[in-house]
Amino acid sequence: MSGILRLSHAEVRVPDLQLATAYYAEVVGLVVTHTEPGQAFLKGWDEQQHHSLILSEEATYGLNSLAFKVMEPSELDRLAARVEDAGITVERFEPRERNVASGSIARFVAPSGHTVELEQGQTQVGNGLTLINPPPAPDGLVGMHPPRIDHIFLLCEDVDGITTFFRDVLEFRLTEQIMADDGHQLTTFLERTHNPHDIAFLTGPDGGFHHLAYWVDEWNDLRHAADTCAYHGVEIDAGPTRHGATRGCGLYFFDPAGNRNEVYTGGYWFDPDDEPTTWTEAEMGRAVFTYRGQVDPAFMSVHS
Amino acid sequence: MSGILRLSHAEVRVPDLQLATAYYAEVVGLVVTHTEPGQAFLKGWDEQQHHSLILSEEATYGLNSLAFKVMEPSELDRLAARVEDAGITVERFEPRERNVASGSIARFVAPSGHTVELEQGQTQVGNGLTLINPPPAPDGLVGMHPPRIDHIFLLCEDVDGITTFFRDVLEFRLTEQIMADDGHQLTTFLERTHNPHDIAFLTGPDGGFHHLAYWVDEWNDLRHAADTCAYHGVEIDAGPTRHGATRGCGLYFFDPAGNRNEVYTGGYWFDPDDEPTTWTEAEMGRAVFTYRGQVDPAFMSVHS
Amino acid sequence: MSGILRLSHAEVRVPDLQLATAYYAEVVGLVVTHTEPGQAFLKGWDEQQHHSLILSEEATYGLNSLAFKVMEPSELDRLAARVEDAGITVERFEPRERNVASGSIARFVAPSGHTVELEQGQTQVGNGLTLINPPPAPDGLVGMHPPRIDHIFLLCEDVDGITTFFRDVLEFRLTEQIMADDGHQLTTFLERTHNPHDIAFLTGPDGGFHHLAYWVDEWNDLRHAADTCAYHGVEIDAGPTRHGATRGCGLYFFDPAGNRNEVYTGGYWFDPDDEPTTWTEAEMGRAVFTYRGQVDPAFMSVHS
Amino acid sequence: MSGILRLSHAEVRVPDLQLATAYYAEVVGLVVTHTEPGQAFLKGWDEQQHHSLILSEEATYGLNSLAFKVMEPSELDRLAARVEDAGITVERFEPRERNVASGSIARFVAPSGHTVELEQGQTQVGNGLTLINPPPAPDGLVGMHPPRIDHIFLLCEDVDGITTFFRDVLEFRLTEQIMADDGHQLTTFLERTHNPHDIAFLTGPDGGFHHLAYWVDEWNDLRHAADTCAYHGVEIDAGPTRHGATRGCGLYFFDPAGNRNEVYTGGYWFDPDDEPTTWTEAEMGRAVFTYRGQVDPAFMSVHS
Repeated sequence: MSGILRLSHAEVRVPDLQLATAYYAEVVGLVVTHTEPGQAFLKGWDEQQHHSLILSEEATYGLNSLAFKVMEPSELDRLAARVEDAGITVERFEPRERNVASGSIARFVAPSGHTVELEQGQTQVGNGLTLINPPPAPDGLVGMHPPRIDHIFLLCEDVDGITTFFRDVLEFRLTEQIMADDGHQLTTFLERTHNPHDIAFLTGPDGGFHHLAYWVDEWNDLRHAADTCAYHGVEIDAGPTRHGATRGCGLYFFDPAGNRNEVYTGGYWFDPDDEPTTWTEAEMGRAVFTYRGQVDPAFMSVHS
Repeated sequence: MSGILRLSHAEVRVPDLQLATAYYAEVVGLVVTHTEPGQAFLKGWDEQQHHSLILSEEATYGLNSLAFKVMEPSELDRLAARVEDAGITVERFEPRERNVASGSIARFVAPSGHTVELEQGQTQVGNGLTLINPPPAPDGLVGMHPPRIDHIFLLCEDVDGITTFFRDVLEFRLTEQIMADDGHQLTTFLERTHNPHDIAFLTGPDGGFHHLAYWVDEWNDLRHAADTCAYHGVEIDAGPTRHGATRGCGLYFFDPAGNRNEVYTGGYWFDPDDEPTTWTEAEMGRAVFTYRGQVDPAFMSVHS
Repeated sequence: MSGILRLSHAEVRVPDLQLATAYYAEVVGLVVTHTEPGQAFLKGWDEQQHHSLILSEEATYGLNSLAFKVMEPSELDRLAARVEDAGITVERFEPRERNVASGSIARFVAPSGHTVELEQGQTQVGNGLTLINPPPAPDGLVGMHPPRIDHIFLLCEDVDGITTFFRDVLEFRLTEQIMADDGHQLTTFLERTHNPHDIAFLTGPDGGFHHLAYWVDEWNDLRHAADTCAYHGVEIDAGPTRHGATRGCGLYFFDPAGNRNEVYTGGYWFDPDDEPTTWTEAEMGRAVFTYRGQVDPAFMSVHS
Repeated sequence: MSGILRLSHAEVRVPDLQLATAYYAEVVGLVVTHTEPGQAFLKGWDEQQHHSLILSEEATYGLNSLAFKVMEPSELDRLAARVEDAGITVERFEPRERNVASGSIARFVAPSGHTVELEQGQTQVGNGLTLINPPPAPDGLVGMHPPRIDHIFLLCEDVDGITTFFRDVLEFRLTEQIMADDGHQLTTFLERTHNPHDIAFLTGPDGGFHHLAYWVDEWNDLRHAADTCAYHGVEIDAGPTRHGATRGCGLYFFDPAGNRNEVYTGGYWFDPDDEPTTWTEAEMGRAVFTYRGQVDPAFMSVHS
């Protein structure tokens, strides 16, 4: 297994840890695997690893770091060396040094200002099903209960630059892009899993965080997610709707701290020799929201 | 991109090429990309490559060969060497030597008696959508119109042996297995794409072909597929139903020659460090068909 | 409101009342509104009236009676008189005389051997939602949780005769029929609600009970119902599948006593001046199960 | 069959008849049953009667009339007499006098300023399926292809008054209402079919037309409808979303003339003795759009 396998997890800031944990557990329906003073660890029910979301109690909201999963120690070393060759300092951590379940980690700050971790060997905890003759799902799932993390959407000033970095250094592939009339990239979609995006960058302030998305299996799950928001009084930002870029369908909403979440489904398989799709600036509205054909300015401007 | 990327295509025998081509084009809703005397080439609408199904006019029905996609010429050589190291003769073909769109191919007969090809560089033809500001789907799709190939299900006498070959030589990972009470593997599910299966083996005669499966996005698509079968008088073998193994949902039916098809959806993401699931012989019925909890004997015994 | 409004409820025999009540509450997901020694009363969550199912503890399983809702006392009298004019004895009950929530009832034995009640004024208990600014659904629904009763399917020797009785005396309309080659009706579908059937009769022993069906909103709910059966080890008899007659989709399964249940969705609106649809005996398999095109003999022969 | 059966059809003005007919046939997917200079007649594919929509070529857009179906000539006379008793002039038409397929009609202007027709005996044309052993759907359906008309939404100044008229004179039942803080009705939902609404009134100018809705069977059909709009460049106004009032789900969009359309699904069965649901003015946003919890002012102000 060469290179990055997939998005592993994100660490998100929340001012009220108890409230945020309750929201992610009961409304989103993630599974809490560990709590300690100042942090809570959660995962989608079907994820085998310890966490795909770390909540950190801090005064503000926003993203502390994102992490990708790497399978082999040798690949972690190889990728860390590529980052250092690009002139970026890489910090290394031993297993369990970062947190109760962390693996070997290589950490660096990407040119976009985001702290990125590559992790090999996070503790596996299983998905709650037996390994012998399991039922299709565990009992007692609540809320939206997405099975797993899907992608993360970030902002930075130089989308062309960060896209080049992710392609050339971290070996991502470009699937789609929204091009400004002046020829630079407004938004790019990048993958390692052959899905339309594992990470995407939107033009904005460096270090910006637009949303973290969990996967659901079907369009019907998006209505259930929207009903769940309505039932709990959670503010829905957009959807259920279809995206032009990625062809997937999603629902956006906010956690109690103000971090935007998405549940997402659909998309397509992308072979490495497939051609990327390009959206023109004039069609950006449709690229984001196929049905409305336009983007609410708040969707672009509200982030952390 | 190291190793095998995914299932690429299968070559299936049909006694009446015109009838079979019409069935796959109008009922299944595949796209015909090329026909020539004795052969027709088809693909799912969203596949970018030239074909995922080759129909070959012959006196019998059944499977001639299956093929996996490899991204790099060097990886094709590396894998071919691994097969030869296992004592199996590998035949090589230049691009366009095997057919109008074929890439570089390494061909061999697996210990299960199936002809397996590894292909690098099949012609890409696009998915019918523009690369600039595309709509979510092309116009004029008919029948079930699955976007892409998913997996293939074969039979052989020694499932333990072929599973070892696919794991050790071809670098597949085992996701699930049905174990006989005497400790040998009755059925195994193997993947390269992090899905529950790209290929599976069921105990039976060597070289046997159980079914070829195309992907559809949702449970609702399975009803549409079943309605399509009913409308065209196509015999449905089983489903729409859920599988215990893979947790996916599927519909089985037969092409006019007698080859079994499936449309399949669902399943899960499988990390390489996830543990395989095991089904006991006593629960084999539920492993195959969750809802009925038993397998119609014909489902096992009817194949080619 | 002239005539019969809709199917109101059924009274079903179960040898183990506690087990059956638990099954209908937790697996089917009905709401228990009242229990007393020997009887339990349940309803679909969105039904406003006190019960649509009465479980009666008796040594055997099967149907004790079925009941239709009538809106006006004067209409109850008018319909009772029509039944008596047909030479059938009608027994009358005052409100709360039959049970804790019963209205005015006219009871008689139909020519098919089934005890039929016409009820006006059963206690209304609400659907668990507030009447001011309600959410879309109450909290805490479990199992399949169908919103309401849909139809009942019975057997009798003379389907032509009972169909005439239901049309001429009880003012039902015929929507579909399966005709034997010799010209008599094998199965008939009758309605008062403009749906494809509120009641249906299949050729078999007089007084026979085939199944009681609850409504669900969508095809996806049928998969959820089937998953629920699988999870709880409830035997699934057929489906999820589509019916030719009624064009609806359904799932059949058995309660612990052996009574067959269905959850059903789809169908169509039927105006009183629409023409009935006829199925020939040769196409009976497709009339019942569109996808398989044949009926498992047990589906016809297993009943009470 | 006493009283009004259901909403029968609406006559809508369009400046460009050819364009509008093409839109309703190809995008909405209605079936054109008759055209003549200045008018086109269409229906949902599963409707048996000749038309549920009449397009009339006129300089403006908006609603000319709406019509309800009555089953018996005697009931048409009885209802016409009730309207006259309310002091409103009723005009009568013989069969085929109003158009090529019209039945006996009683026409009057309701206190809300809308021209209302009661029709008995419109020509039945069938739904395109055979009456013997039919498939589940006819071949060749395109666009959204809703099976049938569902409801109509109108505006008037005195919602309290028109609601009283529809209840007392036309024998409709109130299912839901949005109440102003000053105690008058802002919006009312009325039914004859035991669905949440066959007609609804919103406060606005007399004679106003908000939208005409066709039924689709499932939430998935709303995504297909939205994809269809996107594909054809049809402006989507709102949705796919859930309504608080009626608990149904819908998608709003505009025909080329500016008339608002909806495709709608869900809702519930309403017994005549069920209690109406009330929404407060403060919760009007959620009553209309559950997910956003607010109403775009244009949704209220854009109408004809």
